[in-house]
Amino acid sequence: MDCVFCKIVKGEIPSYKVYEDDKFLAFLDINPLSPGHTQIIPKAHYKFVWDVPNAGEYFEVAKKIALAQRKAFNKEVIWSRITGEEVPHAHIWIFIDPKTPGDKDDFEANAEKIKIQI
Amino acid sequence: MDCVFCKIVKGEIPSYKVYEDDKFLAFLDINPLSPGHTQIIPKAHYKFVWDVPNAGEYFEVAKKIALAQRKAFNKEVIWSRITGEEVPHAHIWIFIDPKTPGDKDDFEANAEKIKIQI
Repeated sequence: MDCVFCKIVKGEIPSYKVYEDDKFLAFLDINPLSPGHTQIIPKAHYKFVWDVPNAGEYFEVAKKIALAQRKAFNKEVIWSRITGEEVPHAHIWIFIDPKTPGDKDDFEANAEKIKIQI
Repeated sequence: MDCVFCKIVKGEIPSYKVYEDDKFLAFLDINPLSPGHTQIIPKAHYKFVWDVPNAGEYFEVAKKIALAQRKAFNKEVIWSRITGEEVPHAHIWIFIDPKTPGDKDDFEANAEKIKIQI
């Protein structure tokens, strides 16, 4: 299947991973709105977040990333957005306020900051 | 406590409810972005979504509302947003594309459309 997120899961396209388990993967968005802007996806292909059967488990991973970003960027407020039009593979965005100063394109450093807080 | 969402939970402020169980409440946003725009909140007071201990269960309720909105408004794509600055009581938004035509201020009819799909 020609799905860019499936290719990231398989390692055919590189990504800045911040978390991975047997069912889910979290990696930095390549067009970040703020430093550390993360995408959380199921490894199996589902078109929309609402199609993922184990939604509770999925959201627990999103929460894990949100709590790590809180510590990594010293922010109480962490945003999340679910839309679904751009890439037809379920994804939850977790990100800090886009007005936050910092280099959002320093992917390596931002991924590291989040990873050490998980 | 002077929290507007706690007052909605207690029934001291009226709301257009679409779903309720022992832990969570879903009701229409009073400043809707689109017809049926719903807020899902925990009945207990937590400042942010990320502070709610049973996050998985919380998100399963959000999914229930998203799936009901899909049928109610005949939309495949359902959006969600979590911010947290406006009201200091955890809330998840579930809503359809704001460009969707329809009367977003007809709260009674929109609540009914969602309720019958749950």
